[in-house]
Formats: sequence, C-alpha cells, structure tokens
Amino acid sequence: MKYRIEKDTMGKVKVPINKYWGAQTERSRNNFKIGSSASMPIEIIYGFAYLKKAAAHSNCDLGVLSSEKRDLISQVCEEILEGKLDNQFPLVIWQTGSGTQSNMNVNEVIANRAQELAGKIIGEGEKIVQPNDDVNKSQSSNDTFPTGMHIACYKMIIDTTIPGIEKLRDTLQAKSVEFKDVVKIGRTHLMDATPLTIGQEFSGYVSQLNHGLKALKNTLHHLAELALGGTAVGTGLNAPKGYDVLVAKKIAEFTGLPFITAENKFEALASHDAIVESHGALKQLAVSLNKIANDIRMMASGPRSGIGELIIPANEPGSSIMPGKVNPTQSEALTMVCAQVMGNDVTITVGGTQGHYELNVFKPVMAANFLQSARLIGDACASFNENCAIGIQPNYSRITELVNNSLMLVTALNTKIGYYKAAEIANTAHKNGTTLKEEAVRLGYVTPEEYDAWVKPENMIGFLK
Amino acid sequence: MKYRIEKDTMGKVKVPINKYWGAQTERSRNNFKIGSSASMPIEIIYGFAYLKKAAAHSNCDLGVLSSEKRDLISQVCEEILEGKLDNQFPLVIWQTGSGTQSNMNVNEVIANRAQELAGKIIGEGEKIVQPNDDVNKSQSSNDTFPTGMHIACYKMIIDTTIPGIEKLRDTLQAKSVEFKDVVKIGRTHLMDATPLTIGQEFSGYVSQLNHGLKALKNTLHHLAELALGGTAVGTGLNAPKGYDVLVAKKIAEFTGLPFITAENKFEALASHDAIVESHGALKQLAVSLNKIANDIRMMASGPRSGIGELIIPANEPGSSIMPGKVNPTQSEALTMVCAQVMGNDVTITVGGTQGHYELNVFKPVMAANFLQSARLIGDACASFNENCAIGIQPNYSRITELVNNSLMLVTALNTKIGYYKAAEIANTAHKNGTTLKEEAVRLGYVTPEEYDAWVKPENMIGFLK
Amino acid sequence: MKYRIEKDTMGKVKVPINKYWGAQTERSRNNFKIGSSASMPIEIIYGFAYLKKAAAHSNCDLGVLSSEKRDLISQVCEEILEGKLDNQFPLVIWQTGSGTQSNMNVNEVIANRAQELAGKIIGEGEKIVQPNDDVNKSQSSNDTFPTGMHIACYKMIIDTTIPGIEKLRDTLQAKSVEFKDVVKIGRTHLMDATPLTIGQEFSGYVSQLNHGLKALKNTLHHLAELALGGTAVGTGLNAPKGYDVLVAKKIAEFTGLPFITAENKFEALASHDAIVESHGALKQLAVSLNKIANDIRMMASGPRSGIGELIIPANEPGSSIMPGKVNPTQSEALTMVCAQVMGNDVTITVGGTQGHYELNVFKPVMAANFLQSARLIGDACASFNENCAIGIQPNYSRITELVNNSLMLVTALNTKIGYYKAAEIANTAHKNGTTLKEEAVRLGYVTPEEYDAWVKPENMIGFLK
Amino acid sequence: MKYRIEKDTMGKVKVPINKYWGAQTERSRNNFKIGSSASMPIEIIYGFAYLKKAAAHSNCDLGVLSSEKRDLISQVCEEILEGKLDNQFPLVIWQTGSGTQSNMNVNEVIANRAQELAGKIIGEGEKIVQPNDDVNKSQSSNDTFPTGMHIACYKMIIDTTIPGIEKLRDTLQAKSVEFKDVVKIGRTHLMDATPLTIGQEFSGYVSQLNHGLKALKNTLHHLAELALGGTAVGTGLNAPKGYDVLVAKKIAEFTGLPFITAENKFEALASHDAIVESHGALKQLAVSLNKIANDIRMMASGPRSGIGELIIPANEPGSSIMPGKVNPTQSEALTMVCAQVMGNDVTITVGGTQGHYELNVFKPVMAANFLQSARLIGDACASFNENCAIGIQPNYSRITELVNNSLMLVTALNTKIGYYKAAEIANTAHKNGTTLKEEAVRLGYVTPEEYDAWVKPENMIGFLK
Repeated sequence: MKYRIEKDTMGKVKVPINKYWGAQTERSRNNFKIGSSASMPIEIIYGFAYLKKAAAHSNCDLGVLSSEKRDLISQVCEEILEGKLDNQFPLVIWQTGSGTQSNMNVNEVIANRAQELAGKIIGEGEKIVQPNDDVNKSQSSNDTFPTGMHIACYKMIIDTTIPGIEKLRDTLQAKSVEFKDVVKIGRTHLMDATPLTIGQEFSGYVSQLNHGLKALKNTLHHLAELALGGTAVGTGLNAPKGYDVLVAKKIAEFTGLPFITAENKFEALASHDAIVESHGALKQLAVSLNKIANDIRMMASGPRSGIGELIIPANEPGSSIMPGKVNPTQSEALTMVCAQVMGNDVTITVGGTQGHYELNVFKPVMAANFLQSARLIGDACASFNENCAIGIQPNYSRITELVNNSLMLVTALNTKIGYYKAAEIANTAHKNGTTLKEEAVRLGYVTPEEYDAWVKPENMIGFLK
Repeated sequence: MKYRIEKDTMGKVKVPINKYWGAQTERSRNNFKIGSSASMPIEIIYGFAYLKKAAAHSNCDLGVLSSEKRDLISQVCEEILEGKLDNQFPLVIWQTGSGTQSNMNVNEVIANRAQELAGKIIGEGEKIVQPNDDVNKSQSSNDTFPTGMHIACYKMIIDTTIPGIEKLRDTLQAKSVEFKDVVKIGRTHLMDATPLTIGQEFSGYVSQLNHGLKALKNTLHHLAELALGGTAVGTGLNAPKGYDVLVAKKIAEFTGLPFITAENKFEALASHDAIVESHGALKQLAVSLNKIANDIRMMASGPRSGIGELIIPANEPGSSIMPGKVNPTQSEALTMVCAQVMGNDVTITVGGTQGHYELNVFKPVMAANFLQSARLIGDACASFNENCAIGIQPNYSRITELVNNSLMLVTALNTKIGYYKAAEIANTAHKNGTTLKEEAVRLGYVTPEEYDAWVKPENMIGFLK
Repeated sequence: MKYRIEKDTMGKVKVPINKYWGAQTERSRNNFKIGSSASMPIEIIYGFAYLKKAAAHSNCDLGVLSSEKRDLISQVCEEILEGKLDNQFPLVIWQTGSGTQSNMNVNEVIANRAQELAGKIIGEGEKIVQPNDDVNKSQSSNDTFPTGMHIACYKMIIDTTIPGIEKLRDTLQAKSVEFKDVVKIGRTHLMDATPLTIGQEFSGYVSQLNHGLKALKNTLHHLAELALGGTAVGTGLNAPKGYDVLVAKKIAEFTGLPFITAENKFEALASHDAIVESHGALKQLAVSLNKIANDIRMMASGPRSGIGELIIPANEPGSSIMPGKVNPTQSEALTMVCAQVMGNDVTITVGGTQGHYELNVFKPVMAANFLQSARLIGDACASFNENCAIGIQPNYSRITELVNNSLMLVTALNTKIGYYKAAEIANTAHKNGTTLKEEAVRLGYVTPEEYDAWVKPENMIGFLK
Repeated sequence: MKYRIEKDTMGKVKVPINKYWGAQTERSRNNFKIGSSASMPIEIIYGFAYLKKAAAHSNCDLGVLSSEKRDLISQVCEEILEGKLDNQFPLVIWQTGSGTQSNMNVNEVIANRAQELAGKIIGEGEKIVQPNDDVNKSQSSNDTFPTGMHIACYKMIIDTTIPGIEKLRDTLQAKSVEFKDVVKIGRTHLMDATPLTIGQEFSGYVSQLNHGLKALKNTLHHLAELALGGTAVGTGLNAPKGYDVLVAKKIAEFTGLPFITAENKFEALASHDAIVESHGALKQLAVSLNKIANDIRMMASGPRSGIGELIIPANEPGSSIMPGKVNPTQSEALTMVCAQVMGNDVTITVGGTQGHYELNVFKPVMAANFLQSARLIGDACASFNENCAIGIQPNYSRITELVNNSLMLVTALNTKIGYYKAAEIANTAHKNGTTLKEEAVRLGYVTPEEYDAWVKPENMIGFLK
C-alpha cells in the first residue's frame, strides 16, 4: 500500500494515500484495535456533516470564516451526507470517550477533500482549509460529538423508530376493529378466565403502543437540545457571541428537525441525560412489544397441541429436521430485539452515570447503543407488521370451542347467587369433569332456564370497548 | 396462641384470634414463607384503603351496596389510613403475582373489623359485610392491585421524591448564584482543561435535575390512570355502568391527586408500562444524582493530597482506625441509592415484559421496587441536601492555585496564533516544567504584554451563564 | 424519652438511655434518614459478632489485648449471635459506603454492654472496654465490613440458598424418574414438535439446577477469602504480625465454615469481585429457575382451555372475583424472585465497578442485595418445592390426546422417505385437517402398515435418558 | 442482478446467481430486514463449519453417509474456515430464535458449493449433496446452533479474551514488582489515608484479574458441553446410536479444544445457562477492569491540577480545541467496553430466562452479545496493555509530596497514644493548617524524637506484600 505523510501536533504519521483522513485518524486506528473496524455508526458521521456545515455557515455569518472556506466545507459535508465518503471513517466506538478522534476524522476528511475540491494536491503546501482552525472553528469535540449524536439519534427516531411502531400500531388497531365481535376466552395467570373479544385484547396492545409513542415523544424536547456552542467545557470559549443559537437554528434548517441550542451547555457536555431519557422510552416500548409478541405467539401456538386461537402467516420452513413445521419467527426476532434494547439500556445508564467534572466520556458507547436500539425497534416493528401482524386471522372454531369450555363463565352468577355458591359450582364441575350448567342445576342454585339466560359469553364482555 | 376458625371456598383455616384477617390471608402466610414477613409495602395497603372506600361509595351511589355497608367499609378504611391496623397485613411481596392475597387480606380485615364495629362478634354468625361480595364488589384483584399500586406510587412521588429532589435542586441553584464569580479550572477526561466558574458547574447540576423533574412529571399522566372498573379481565364484568369513571373520581377526591380512569382497561391489567415509564424517569434521576454526588466528592477530596476545591461538612468521624478522618458520606449514601435504583429498573423492566394474555403477574415485585426507588431518591436527596449540599463552601486558595497552574489556559491563544502554535507552547511548557508565559514568549509567538492581555482565566469563562 | 451523653472525637451526643449504642451510631441515625430504619441486614451484624470475637481472641493470643477484655468482648458477641441484642442496631444500608458506622455501632454496643457485664454503669467513668482501641483493635471498618459481609453471605448460601435449591432439585429428580415413561408432545418455538417423556423434560431441569449449584460452589472459594488483617488500606497497619491468618482461622472455627485470609488484602478492600462472582451464580440460578417455573405453569395452564398436561396443587382460591379459579401462584412467587435477583445483579455490578483507589464504598448496598437474593432464592425454592413441585402429577388423558395429534410425528419418516416428502405429508395434513397417516398413504409414500410400524411416539424418544 | 431458482418445501425462490445460498436463506433475507445485513457473527458460521464436518465424518463412520458425501462436505467446511466463503452468509441476528435460518444457510451453501466441487452445475439436476438429508443429517437447528455457538464462544475466550487479559495481568504484575518500594499516599473514600506502595496497589489489580481468570476458567467446563446429538427436542431422534459422543470427540479433535457431549441434551437445547454462566465471568472481569482503568486515570489526572501520581503514555492529541492536551484514552475505551459488557449481561440474562418447553429461542442474540463481550474484553485489554499499561511510570516527586502531606500518618500513633488523642492531633492540624508533628508536640502527646521515630510512611506499609 502507498502512503503519504500527515502531521499533527505530535508529529508525522503515514496515512494510506487513497484516504482523505489525516494523522489523528491514523493514530486512532493504530491505538484502538478493538472489535471490528469502522464500528462508529455512520449516522453519527452524518450528524457531524450537518453540524460542520452549520458551523461553517454560522462562523461565516458571524465574520470569523471566509465564504470560500464555508463553501468548501459545505460541499464536502454534502458529499458525506450523500454517502459518497462512507469509506473514509474507519474508527471504532472504543476510542477516546469524548469522540475526539471521530471529530478529527471528520475535520481531516473535510480539510483534505476540500484541498482536492480547491484544485490542490493533498499533502502538498499549506492546507487551504485547516482541520482545527477552520473546520473545527468555534467548536470542540466536547460539544460537537454530543451534537452529532443528538442529530443522529433524533433522526433515527423520526425516520425509523416511530414509523415502524406506527405501522404496527395501525395494523393492530385495524385488527382490533375487525375482530371486535370475536368472543374468546380470557386468561389470567395463564389460566382460564372470563371472556373478552379479540378486539378488546388487541385494543390493549394498541393502547400500550400509543402510550409508548407518547412517552417517546415526551423525551424529544430534551433530545432536541444541542451542545454546540459550549466548546471545550461549556463556557463557549473561542466561539463568537450568538453562535450557539445561530448554529442550532441552521442545523434545524438543514435537517428539518426542531433542534434548539441547549439551555445549559455545562449539562450538555458533562452528562447525557437526554440520551438516557429517550432510551428509557425505547426500553419502555421494548417492554410493550415483548408483551405483544409473546401473546401473539402463545395464541398462535400449535397447530394442534397448543392454544391455536390465532393463525399467523407461514413465511418459511421452520425446522431443518421436522418437516412441515412453521414457527412464530417474527415474534422471535422482535423479542430478541427487545432483549437487546433492555441490555442496551443498562449500558447507556452506566455510561450516563459516569460523567466527571465537565465531560462525560462514554459518548460513543452511549450513542452507538442508542442508535442500535432505535433502529432495531423500528425495523423489527416494520418486519413484524409486514410479515406477521397484517396476516393474523382468528381460528374461529378453536376460539369457540375454548370459550365454551371455560369454567370461569360461572363468574356471571356472582351477582345472582353470590361468590361462594358460584365457586361451589365451578369446583364441583372441575372435580367431576362436568359442565357448569349440569352442576349449577344439580346443586339447585339455578334453573336451566336461568342458567341459559345468565351465562352467555357474549354478554360477559362488558361495556369497555 | 389462640385461634378461631375462618372459612373460604376451599374450607376451614385456623387464624390467630387477635387478628382481623381471614382464611385466605392465613393460607398465604403458610404457603409463601419467602423472605421477611410483611414485606408487602404498607403504602400499597393504604392505596387499597383509598380504593375500597371509593368503591364502596361508588357502589352505593350506583345502587348496588347499602349505605350501611358503605359506611362500615369506609370507617375501616379510615382506620387503615390512620395507621391503626398496620399489624394486620402480614403478607409478603413473593405471593401470587396478581396480589390477590393482599387484596383478600384487605377485604378480610375490613369485613371482620366491620363486624366488630357493627357490634357483632368476629367468627360468629353471618358476616355483616362479606369480603368478596361486599368489600370486593365490582372489583377483582386484577383491577384493584394495579389501582392500589398506582395510588401508592403516585403519592410517593408527590410526597417524597419530588420534594426531596426540589430541595436539593434549590440549594444547588442558590450555590450556583452564590459562587457565580469563583473561577476554577475545568476538567475534561479528568484532565486539566479551560476554566469556568463554580456557578457554571453547579448550573449544570441544576439543569440536570430540572430536566429530570420534567421527565418525571411527564410520566405522571400515565401513572394517574387507574385500572379499577376493569374487574377480572378488563371488560368490567360485574361492575355497574359508569362505575369506572365514578370510582376514579372518588379516589381523586379522597387522595387530592388527579387520578382518572384508564382509557384502556385491558392494558391496565395486562401490562404495567406506566410503572415502567415512571421508574424510567426515576432511573434517569439516579443517573443525574450519581454524577452530581460523584463530582462533589471528587472536588472535596483531600484534604491535603486530593483535589480539595470544595469543603463539605464534617458530620461524623470517618474512620474507626484513622483518627481525624472525614469522608464524603452523603455522596456515598446517595450513590448507593443510585445503584439500587438502576438495579430496580431492571427488575421492573423484566417484570413489565412478562404480562401474559389478560394479566401481568409481576405486580407486587414491580410495585415494591418502584416504591423503594421513589422513597430512597426522595429521602437521599433530602439527606444529601441537609447534611452536605447546604454546607458546601469553596476552598478559595486551592481553587486559585489550581486554575493558575493549568496549561490549558493556552486555549485562549488559539484565535490569536492558531491551534498548532498554541499546542507547541503547551507541550513545551509541559516537557520543561515551565509556565505557559515563559514558553510563549521564548518561542516568540507572543510578547509578555500580549500574553497577559490575552490569557486571563476570568476572561475565559464565556457568556454562557 | 430519656437520654445519656456519649462522646466521640467530634464531641458529645445525646443517646437514648435504654440503648447500648454510642455517639457515632446516633450521629448516623440523625444524618442518614433514608428509607426504613434498621435496614442494615441483621446477618451482617452477626457476621461482625463472629469477627469481633475472633479478633479479640487473636489479639489476646498475640499479646495485644488482655484476657479480661477478650472475655467481655466475646460474651457480648455471643449475646448478639443469640439474637438478644437485635434491637441495638438501628442503622440503615444508606450510610457511609464503607459501613464504618455499622462497625462503630457494633463496637459501641459491645463496649457499653461489656461495661454492664463488668458491673459498671454505662456512661460513668472510663469505659472498661474502649470501642476503638479495644473492640476495634487491629481492625478498620475497611477490613471488618467486607469480612462481616463475606461471613453473612457465605452463611446464607450454605444455610438457605443451597438447601432450598437442593430440595427442589431432588423433587424434580424424583419426578423425572417417576414419569420416565410418560410420552408427551415436545414443543419448540411453542409449536408442536417431536415427542419426549416427562422424565426427559424434567431431567433437563435437574441438569440446569445441578449445573447452577456447581457454578455457585465454584464461587465459594473466592467468597471464603476474608479481608480482616488488611486494616485501613490493605497494608495491615497496626495489626500484629500473623494476625490475619490467625483471625481467619478463628472465624472458620467459630462459624464451622472454611474461611481463609484473603491472599491479597488490597483487592479485598478496594473491590468486591467475590460478591460479584457469587451473585453472578445466583443470577444464573434465577435464570434456570425462571425457565423451570415458567414451563410448569404453562404445562399446567387451563384447566380446560390451556395446555393442561400437568396438574399442580390447588393451594388457595385464585381469584377474588372468579369463583373456583386456581392459579400457579408458586411459579409466580418464584419468577418474581428471579426478576428481583436479576435487578440485584445490576445493582451489585454497578457497585462493584465503583471502587476507587484503596476502597470500594458500595459495601452495604452490595451486601444487602446479595443477602436478599440468596435468601429469596433459597426460600422460594423451598416454598415452590413444598407447595407445588412435590404435588405435580401428569394429566394422562390430556397428554395422550395431545401427543397423538401432533403433525411432527412425521419426522420419524425422514430417514425412510426423506425430509421433502415428509414435509409434503405434514403440510397436506395441516391444510386438509386430516391425519398424517391418511395423507402419507394417499400420497403413496408409505403403506398403512409401514406407517404404523414407523410412526410410534414411544419409539421417538431416543436413547438419551 | 441475475437470479436462479431455488426450491424448498414451501416452493420456489429467486436467488442471486453468484451466491451459493438457497431458498431458505433468501426467504430469511426478505423476511428479516432488521438492522445491518450479515450481522450474524462470522465466528458462529465457523463454528458451524467445524460441526458440519464433524457430523459428516461421524455419519460416515456410523454408516449413514457415504464417504463421497463426507469428503465433499468436509472440503466446503475447510473453505469456510479459511474465510473463502465469508460473503455467503448474509443473514442477521434478528431472525428465528433457533437460528434455523443460519443453519440452513450453511447447509445450502455447503450443498451448492459441493455441487460445484463435484463438477456439476448449481441448480441443474438433483443435488449431489442434499442440504437437509445429507449436510444436516443426524442434526437439527436445535442442536447445531447451540453447538456452533459454544464452539464460537469457547474459541473466542481461548483465542482472544484470556490472552488479552493475561497480557495486561502480566504487565501489571511486572509493574507491581518494579514499583514495590515506591511509597505513596493511600486513599479511601477518595480521601487521604495511610500510605502503601504502588507495588501493593498494583498487586490488588493483579489479584483481581487472577481471580477473574480463575472464575472464567471455572465456567469453561459447562461451555465445553455440546448439544449436538440431541436433534429436534433433545431425544436424539434420527441420529444413530453413539453419534453424540463421537461427534463431540471429532469437534474436539478438529478444534483442539476439550469439547464433550452435553450430559443432558434437554437442558442443552432448552436453556443456555452455560452462556449465562460464562458471560457472568466476563461481566465480573468487566467490573474488575473498570476499577483498574478508573484508578489509573485518576492517578494520572492532571498534569498540573489533578492527582498526578502516575505518568501514562501520550498517544495522540487529546483535544480538537485545547492545544497540547493529553487524555487517558485507553482507560476510556476500556471502561466503555466494560459498560457494554454490563449491558450485554442483561441481554443474555433476559434471553436465558425465556426458554420455553424444549427450546430456547434467544440463541442468536445471546451468542452475538457473548461474542462481542469476549472479543471486546480481549482486544481492549491488549490495547490498554500495549498503549498504556506498559508505559506507566510513577511521578516520583509528586508522590513524595503528597504522601508527606497526609494527616493520616497520625494513624501510626494509635498504638502509642490511643485513637482519641491521635484524632485530636489530626483535627487540630487540619483546623490550623499545620503539620502533625507541630501539633503532636504542642499538645504534649509525643516528643519530637518520638514523632520522628514513630511516624514514618515507609514503616507504615505493613508486611502484606
């Protein structure tokens, strides 16, 4: 491989000649051989692209950067956002906890690519655009990295998480309406209970997701706060007055998202409670989704020796040894995602506690875990929706058979003959393997006509729709 | 010990004669000898007292319970709320996951105590007030337990958590103002960085707590939703029409808190996402508090060989072997609480995922962990505030010494001579053990006058207050 | 309330006259009003009693404590271990993270009670036995508290955890043998699969618990290491030579457990990896128990509209509204315990990471969570065993019905006609709602005689017992 | 893109013509668009390659597979292990929880590549080697996937985790010896305490890692147990007698690792406690490493306004805004890894609890998290060792300055004048800002000569090395 020489304040470094990055990126590659290369999420790089462009514009507006430099920087940022430079960001999550090296990676790539765009040769002569003095002007890693991660995380929630959940929610809502009159047995403690409709059951899922979406949206205001302008320790040293508000406004404009400058920059560098907060909502959604996915696979279990009340799509052969087997694989993928999100929440929580003085240095691990969770929930909901939820159908005959079996229909008699006599009926029928009606009549507590009038599953589903 | 005979649908049970509880409570005591007795939090019992009274009133208003029974039930509920019957609730958290046995414990105690209040003898004759048919009328464990836990959790947050946090927040806010002009060294990566004021540093803590309080309050609307009226599976079977709205209104009235009936009762029984959601906010606050408590103890470390920038109150001898030692014990108590809350969050998350069909049967463990977290955070903040935060004072001489030492003051030169030359100055001073000024002048980058004019800590604290 | 005056190095404190504790205990009571009082587990106090006695004996043997003082100290330790002084330890978990205040609580109670035993009046004249110079001789909180917690945790595992698990394991083993010939349907992905016996299924549970017990026992060697002798920072300052080995030997003798002196005292004070390690095994057991408890309740679900393959004891009425309902309450209690243990593991993990320099100051929270987990697992296993496992019976008719239904019996044909044809048979039978045999013959892949010879559930349970 | 038609039991599927995979792999690609493609760890594919080869050999030895097929299968397995077919495994973690689709991916790639090796054209004529009937012979996904994951996880621990930790342990051990006489101040509660040597301090780290390595090795026996031979539900249906023992022996031979057949196949399919157990040890190591990395960065903090006792290598510029800043970046990378491992432990724990009946369907997420943790710990330790630990040097002048400052040297006087007088000396010196000696003499408790004789840091480091 061919190399060129790049320099930083510590001296010279050999860099692959076909790469735009510079000395600091190369040092990081060498010093942090931990896990797969390039594990730093590309979404964070894109977040940097937005903010570097916004910073260049703000610096220019405020008179501390030339319009030529602004335009060169902006042009490279556009290229990054178009995905043209994805292979220029080789660094890993497991680097310095401020993400300084990824900030410098972006600064270096922009500076060298700008050199090229300006018609110069990389590595020859003075850099037209300096990585620290120009690209990083009015910035520090300490405020850019959290800004980049807020942009990336917010976008992921808007672009992937919420749409995925909403798709699934809408399908479940439609199913809830479609099956509003399908009376089935209820189950509490996994045991037979009084009846309800599938529509009611699914309405609970819809309500969970609606509450979860609301909870997630409640967190977005905090996540919209950007650290940029705080520079090194939150004081805004070396940034021009008004810069913080302006640069947030430009980021909002470029991304189309309601970003604002953080009301307190010291918090925004030293702690990442906004990440903790929003991921808490993702974890809540994982809790909800786990419940829903579990219920559906249990109700679809069988086909002959399980519960068998729901029929779900058969998408692929389920077993390499058992011919003809079909499994609730979408539930499995979704619940695995939920387990991942629960673990990620602990990682983010631990990282969040460990800010010290003016800086939290668990930024990359917090951001990477957040982005994984946000994407996985969105993708898995979309997948579950498309490949499972849309196709759910009741197994009518099985549902009818099971609801009519239930000894818990006796509950309808509570208000007629009292809990204790009703219990005697149910216990006797259970012991004798007989029907409720047989025992109710035999014990002399009701007439057959009363029984038929009072114990009707379809009348036991209440007024709560 | 003397016993009387109590009965339930399974038969007769011997119960201590001096206790109001009945057969089902006694069965639970015998069947669940797990951990310390009476571990079910008393706050949940009080929650039950509110709801049993509200149910009795609603049932009476709706014509399904006599006013005599209503009054007897209400009277016992008042006694419970006054703490007169605390020793009547011997059950543990580790019982049935629906909390049925604690619901029955309350029903039985109310019924037997009502018997007494009505001038009858417990265990003789028909019960004036029946535990299932009267006290539990229009109810199920499945809707009462989650209602009781929402009442208990909501009250704990309002009565203990928020006031404790607000006290601490107010003190930190006052300190932030008091020390707004005390310039100190900043630290990032634990390393010397550019300066800021103590006021700015503490303003970050205030901002964290304000964001955390906002996040917590955002969750309260979900927590205000009550399951009551859903009865067995969420359909409201055996409850009169309008009961759910009415009973929530009465609970709101009796507690003075804005409770409302859950918009979806199926969710409210089968999942406890509201508990997950609110506890997520408690966990976020634990993350913030951990950061704050850590910073304060690190800045107070010493007295002679640590950082020593803050002086905190000496409340007690710190060591049984090292005479005269004083330790940051309030920080330690608070961070231990934070660790507990982080673990409790996982317990609650795991419990929250495991609802099956129409019921989540991790209710007691979720509620107990929530109440512990909410109380500990409130109490620990109040303790930290009273015994530490209020007494924090800067160690002025130490602060001045440390800020003037810092090589990072060189950052002020970035905008004058560029990042690379500034780095050269800092690196050289570090290598030679000299001052920035010496090297800056020696290297010929600035005059002594320029240096003095440009590098002033008090001018490096920015406009961000 | 009446008070007497006690003193420590910070001055005078009023203490309730009927209590043995002194100034430092009282300061802690006042300074740490966090959560319920006296939350510090009594088992840790007992651990202190063992070690204070052992220290007194060792100090005497090594010539630094008189035999009179040794005997007085020992006598009070015996009283503590007999439970006679339980109400003398009012402190909370949420105190200083070294547990210094509980160490001093023990020192003070021993000193004052010794005063009384020596025929003197508490608070009058010089203390016969000094809390710091005598009771705490050759000790520091920093080595006593971890010693006390290792003693407490080790004993809890030996006395409660392991016996509880072994009881359950033995029952499951007996059931595995008892039901070794009961062929039932297997289920993978919750879906019908090839058959196995209940004996085989239960043998998996036994194997899980055996592996878990082995894992737990593997951790005990680390837990047997005692910090005592390290004193303030691990160097053993102020302790006589040979003291560390001797005192561990005496603790081993007094407790009957194989305690040894820690091979490295610096580790033993500054980190509590032994607690992390042993609790990791408890968490593994929680994982296993959760699986077992879940399986049993799912197989026992019904009675009429669930799986219904197992019959478990009906121990109490299951519902306050649904008469005659019986629930798998022991599974519920056990799985709630598992959720608690999983959360406690995170608390302990977080605490374990936060040792700084020579001391970890999360000792009380780590110890308290460990003891809770160890006790709950032991108690819950014993409860589950006694009230559920012992009574488990197969529902033979249901088991036979379900196994014969299964389309996955077709797997037996793989080796005869290949996977693809076998799949065709199963898929066709599923589509048509017919039997495997009908379709197998109709498709011409086997004769009826071949089918009957090849497809026999009882021949499909393998040679793996 | 060009396609060919592949078939499975559900029908025809279009597959990219340049890929070896078949219908089921393609279905999975389409049905599980969740997260990045090809996220299933390649190490698991390699684990499959070992086991498929071992299965082919065992099947041939036991007379159920021809030697021709054995050789073809083996040859492709070798190619996989050489990394030649890495781009043939496009599936994600978030698929069916049994990993069936990845098992089929391997089966299909082997079958089609074997077709090619046999000189035939893929997609034309009968497959020479059938994916289900030949490659998967005597196997099920349910026993192959856990076998593949045990192989992958075991190898990662042996190849990466343990060597990484041992390198760091050896360096710390060497430093412990090198600095055995460097007396420094001890710190407890972050506060000045009695002295010890750097050698002693580092010996604690070595002890932690040694205990952690021992704990990890304790878990390997469980991890060495292979599920293979259990087939569909653990009974070994369709596998020849003796196959399970034989195939494990061959895997042991091919990998050079001590694999054995699982003593209970039902456990081995339905639960993954071995993964939980080994990852518990990885988490314990994360706890230890976090402590070590934290201590080192705190002791290296400064350079001028922190603790500054250790000098660590300056590997890269630390700040994009603060010139000349150097940060403890290796500590940051390592502690981020620790946070990740703690979260992964929760994911694995949650996954481990959710086995149902005969199968745990959280296999891929458990395996992927385990492999990430095992690799990251190994890599991060190696990186920390190479780029930080090896270069650690004491800052001798700073260490001497700080130890001599400490008021806690007074502890040496406890055994001479008692704890209370010693405390008076320390408190007075602290209040007056004087030295211990001054106050000790002034208070009349010791002569200057006694003070000098008794209070010597170098005599306070004990006999515990």
